[in-house]
Amino acid sequence: MKSRAAVAFEAGKPLEIAEVDLEGPREGEVLVEIKATGICHTDEFTLSGADPEGLFPAILGHEGAGVVVDVGAGVKGLKKGDHVIPLYTPECRECPSCLSQKTNLCTAIRATQGQGLMPDGSSRFSLDGKPLFHYMGTSTFSNYTVLPEIALAKIREDAPFDKVCYIGCGVTTGIGAVIHTAKVEEGATAVVFGLGGIGLNVIQGLRLAGADMIIGVDLNNSKKEWGERFGMTHFVNPTEIGGDLVSYLVDLTKRGADQIGGADYTFDCTGNVTVMRQALECAHRGWGQSIVIGVAPAGAEISTRPFQLVTGRVWKGTAFGGARGRTDVPKIVEWYMDGKIEIDPMITHTLPLQDINKGFDLMHAGESIRSVVIY
Amino acid sequence: MKSRAAVAFEAGKPLEIAEVDLEGPREGEVLVEIKATGICHTDEFTLSGADPEGLFPAILGHEGAGVVVDVGAGVKGLKKGDHVIPLYTPECRECPSCLSQKTNLCTAIRATQGQGLMPDGSSRFSLDGKPLFHYMGTSTFSNYTVLPEIALAKIREDAPFDKVCYIGCGVTTGIGAVIHTAKVEEGATAVVFGLGGIGLNVIQGLRLAGADMIIGVDLNNSKKEWGERFGMTHFVNPTEIGGDLVSYLVDLTKRGADQIGGADYTFDCTGNVTVMRQALECAHRGWGQSIVIGVAPAGAEISTRPFQLVTGRVWKGTAFGGARGRTDVPKIVEWYMDGKIEIDPMITHTLPLQDINKGFDLMHAGESIRSVVIY
Repeated sequence: MKSRAAVAFEAGKPLEIAEVDLEGPREGEVLVEIKATGICHTDEFTLSGADPEGLFPAILGHEGAGVVVDVGAGVKGLKKGDHVIPLYTPECRECPSCLSQKTNLCTAIRATQGQGLMPDGSSRFSLDGKPLFHYMGTSTFSNYTVLPEIALAKIREDAPFDKVCYIGCGVTTGIGAVIHTAKVEEGATAVVFGLGGIGLNVIQGLRLAGADMIIGVDLNNSKKEWGERFGMTHFVNPTEIGGDLVSYLVDLTKRGADQIGGADYTFDCTGNVTVMRQALECAHRGWGQSIVIGVAPAGAEISTRPFQLVTGRVWKGTAFGGARGRTDVPKIVEWYMDGKIEIDPMITHTLPLQDINKGFDLMHAGESIRSVVIY
Repeated sequence: MKSRAAVAFEAGKPLEIAEVDLEGPREGEVLVEIKATGICHTDEFTLSGADPEGLFPAILGHEGAGVVVDVGAGVKGLKKGDHVIPLYTPECRECPSCLSQKTNLCTAIRATQGQGLMPDGSSRFSLDGKPLFHYMGTSTFSNYTVLPEIALAKIREDAPFDKVCYIGCGVTTGIGAVIHTAKVEEGATAVVFGLGGIGLNVIQGLRLAGADMIIGVDLNNSKKEWGERFGMTHFVNPTEIGGDLVSYLVDLTKRGADQIGGADYTFDCTGNVTVMRQALECAHRGWGQSIVIGVAPAGAEISTRPFQLVTGRVWKGTAFGGARGRTDVPKIVEWYMDGKIEIDPMITHTLPLQDINKGFDLMHAGESIRSVVIY
């Protein structure tokens, strides 16, 4: 069949809209009509050429929502008409990682997904007879896409595609980092570095978890209002405090009898390794956990004195918010439908597919929290 | 009163035996006759001058066991004749850290302890009218010493001082890192870097926790027999594998369906920041935890790519094995008396106080696991 798609032909070049060829689903695979897709920094990271594992030509996009159109042989859990969110982190429930109950990083199709291919080692996409690479196993910048059944979360049918597509990456990453990775408890203090699309979702995750003090850190003062809208209690602009950021944050988090200070939980949503270190070092002595969410440039390294760890700080990271996609994503959709979390205000721009490059421009200019393409 | 003690007059010089003056216990304090004390690398670290916070002249020693001789006003939990182990990490059960139930790093007397003083800001030790500094709040290189009540664990009276003194630091640090900090479960795989006094106790902690695969890593082949004696299942000498140590360990830990490899838990007992990085990076993707135990040289930093954390590895540290001294040390003494853990074979040398410098020499030469001074 044919599908309209935005194709990334080359690193550093804008996407090009094209009619691509799409083969139907093979065994264990599902054909999905994508109804909406967010544009995420990770797409930009790959498109820019900064991603050392980026492959071209490819169909990017990993934050979608849509409807099942057809299923291949052996697909048991999904049928035509089901509403779904594609999962760049699948959940096979059979590999050692899924069975460990300690991680969401399913390894069932990791090797082929990293090669831009379906699990059988081939691509379903082509143009003029030449294969196009899949991307993150999802390729939601195509109106129709094929995914393995294990990479689709079935969601309730009254959930609006143009909002819940954001649960396919940003919402789940931010909220999941709080709930699954850090396991924040009510009454906690927290610092969130970087108030973009991920940071704001960390903030609303902290509000959901009942944190007392939610400190947002950003260089851009316009983010203060954004943070407060989702539950931030304090805003810090590092350029305006006239001193060392870590000391400032440690002082800010001193409460009651505890004159040591430091946050119970800190989150890096910047991808900047210097910020990651600050996030660790403003965590509380004895128990503070710092969670790395941001993706750092290739080759960048984090460092600290081991004394920071020996005195009880914990350095962790999270991918897809520690969420097991098929199990947890439908729950997050429920939370949105029940009003426990917000998504609508974060979707600042919607665009038709032919304007997808404007979505990247808005991201570069810092004008959008999230742009969503509606097919 | 007078007490015979080994005094550290100056960094880099041997200890000198002297009759020092010791004031009796003030409010909340306890006078203890030290019966035996281990000689630990941390004493050596300070004596050598490498410890930037080292103070001189001081009475070192922090791994002792003894008997209560006198108690000051207000002491309720201890009486004359009680057998005790001094705690360089006290447990007040009242400070925000103790009440957090998340850390053993009691802060009740942290400031004065770091200054080499008792909680009221003065020293009980002097020589020729000039004060001598306390060390780690314990100063077990003196036959008699004064400590706050919160820095003493009461132990059973049939436990031999010349063995259980080792529980005052090395045993608890190693076993506690496994049990309290890592919370290792039965069936786990683990790698222990550095098979000195701490590493061997990590190994016996892993055996106690029911780990399946206990890999010891050391440059010295003579440590193979030592490790095996306490439960090590595999020995790796990095100089003999002819390749990258991390890859080697990842391969070694591949089990059954899990072709990813990497250990569930890794422990650095070397203090070498390069080894700390290797320990993190050979931990299992998705859930592997790496615990820093060793003390690094002043100014040394650990580093890694943040990708290691984002893909699920956790970097932690431990001090005194995460043990709450008054609560956990008596339990570890019970374990020793019940034969659940071993101590006797690790105490390779015993010395009278006048030969204490020989204990340091044996440590330098790598000839001892632990030397114990018996008063």
